[in-house]
Amino acid sequence: MEIRLHSPLDMHLHLREGAMLRTVAPWSARDFAAAVVMPNLVPPVTSLERLTAYREAIGAAVAPHHFTPLMTLFLQPYSEATLSALRSQIIGVKLYPEGVTTNSAGGVSDLTAVEPTLALLEDLGIPLLVHGESHGFVLDREAEFLPIYERWAQRFPRLTIVMEHITTAGAVALLDRYPNLAATVTLHHLMITLDDMAGGLLNPHLFCKPIAKRPEDRAALLQAALAAHPRLMFGSDSAPHPIERKEAAGCAAGVFSAPVCLPLLAELFAHHGALDRLQAFVSDNACAVYGLTPLPKTVTLRRMPWQVPDRYGEVVPFYAGKTVDWAVVARDS
Amino acid sequence: MEIRLHSPLDMHLHLREGAMLRTVAPWSARDFAAAVVMPNLVPPVTSLERLTAYREAIGAAVAPHHFTPLMTLFLQPYSEATLSALRSQIIGVKLYPEGVTTNSAGGVSDLTAVEPTLALLEDLGIPLLVHGESHGFVLDREAEFLPIYERWAQRFPRLTIVMEHITTAGAVALLDRYPNLAATVTLHHLMITLDDMAGGLLNPHLFCKPIAKRPEDRAALLQAALAAHPRLMFGSDSAPHPIERKEAAGCAAGVFSAPVCLPLLAELFAHHGALDRLQAFVSDNACAVYGLTPLPKTVTLRRMPWQVPDRYGEVVPFYAGKTVDWAVVARDS
Repeated sequence: MEIRLHSPLDMHLHLREGAMLRTVAPWSARDFAAAVVMPNLVPPVTSLERLTAYREAIGAAVAPHHFTPLMTLFLQPYSEATLSALRSQIIGVKLYPEGVTTNSAGGVSDLTAVEPTLALLEDLGIPLLVHGESHGFVLDREAEFLPIYERWAQRFPRLTIVMEHITTAGAVALLDRYPNLAATVTLHHLMITLDDMAGGLLNPHLFCKPIAKRPEDRAALLQAALAAHPRLMFGSDSAPHPIERKEAAGCAAGVFSAPVCLPLLAELFAHHGALDRLQAFVSDNACAVYGLTPLPKTVTLRRMPWQVPDRYGEVVPFYAGKTVDWAVVARDS
Repeated sequence: MEIRLHSPLDMHLHLREGAMLRTVAPWSARDFAAAVVMPNLVPPVTSLERLTAYREAIGAAVAPHHFTPLMTLFLQPYSEATLSALRSQIIGVKLYPEGVTTNSAGGVSDLTAVEPTLALLEDLGIPLLVHGESHGFVLDREAEFLPIYERWAQRFPRLTIVMEHITTAGAVALLDRYPNLAATVTLHHLMITLDDMAGGLLNPHLFCKPIAKRPEDRAALLQAALAAHPRLMFGSDSAPHPIERKEAAGCAAGVFSAPVCLPLLAELFAHHGALDRLQAFVSDNACAVYGLTPLPKTVTLRRMPWQVPDRYGEVVPFYAGKTVDWAVVARDS
């Protein structure tokens, strides 16, 4: 059994910088036509200079693969002139509440004070990508943020708001209430719950933000993905950390899934008899939400065993050492 | 400010064997008059020979401290003759559902099939200590086990049933419904929630079973402890693992708290204006529940800064490197 995916897109990706960028970026570039690249570097991507340099570094890291980094800007109180000038360079602006995840110290501390900037984004037709978590109890953070999504969806009806890496049934339900809300969901949140991380021995390699939730949350996410909900897009949130930052007293949040996304998605969708909907989930939905033109890249997967490597450089991948039922057998672009 | 605690008791303790026993046992023996010693070794404590040898190994490890190990037997389908013969050697029998925690592979797989043994315990006046977790989703395991406690509390009204290391508001509520139910609670479950383990960076040293729960659960546990609920006893569940088993891909469950229990309990109770109830929580309640005679050991704590060591041998303790407001300043026995 085979499936050919056209222009597969990863709508939420962390590529890092320097040596880590060079280690991980080629794996995304092999399997995906393009990816939305997160701007939470140190310092964050907040200027044309930084953005251009980062795009060039990504280009150098992924050569000779055909791969388009869809750049994002770290949300700050930008002027209209700044946003107008940057508009053609970015796919969207990413909002991080201050301190909620890796390198978000410069994020937004007052979620209502940011609204003039959101109004500018709406006027300029620039999508808003949001890490939607409160500062509350770790299991409640996404649920506590949903009223903010509702408020913005109502106040900015022409603004495309992407709820990034959703993890709860409540967020899935919200998708159907506002036509200007879209969402990304990761591979790992379709596969694991908190039980996989902490139900037996603790597995730091499954520790991520937002944290994996309850079985009923995973079920709601999976159902929406398998149904190819038109505003639910695949975004890996692949977020590598070196092994010494994972198997440590203070383990960094993030799952490195880039090399295993398409094989595991094929296995998951095939297992549920939904292989015919994978194209929508990994590409078509995102093209429609963002108004993207599909890129000329085709990835063919075949049902055959593939053992995931234990390491990619100093990074332990999702599903390390396990065998997936599907493998990428051809890439044409 | 000072407090003198008479016959402090740790009603749930893991002392391990071999080198680890020799590393950790003296810290319990310094601060506690006695402790209930868990039997989940490899192989478990299921015979007089094993029990006697273990008690002797503990005695050798804690010398010259005055310390009484209150031994427990790992629950299996024992005969009346066996239990009668062992009765004078043990404080109770510990039930582990099969596979729910460290070294519980030989535990009970059928919770109703075990009831004839519970009837024997009731007839012989031997308390039943229970690791009360189901095999369900990690956050629901204790809640799912509560109906089993209810069933047994009703069917065996003369059996003292101790709900070990309770972590939920539901378990606290159950205490008031059945006079033959008692419970232990750990120091760390009075102090932390899942947020402390996984809300920021992941801290494997706070990973334990049962896993720390929600803020409202901690609040209910703390309220009952500070009120010196007469059937709530202190049990540290101090459970050491070497650092290489904690900061690892498969991190073992357990918090090593033995050396810090009394200082942190004094700080906690003093902070909440409940220092006068600490004696009941760390000794008197347990004496009443189990019919124990207090042992002639007095531990004096004073309000003064004490920095917790980073390591005890190869074990990272609870509160490692942090400063506690209280310190043990004298031990008399």
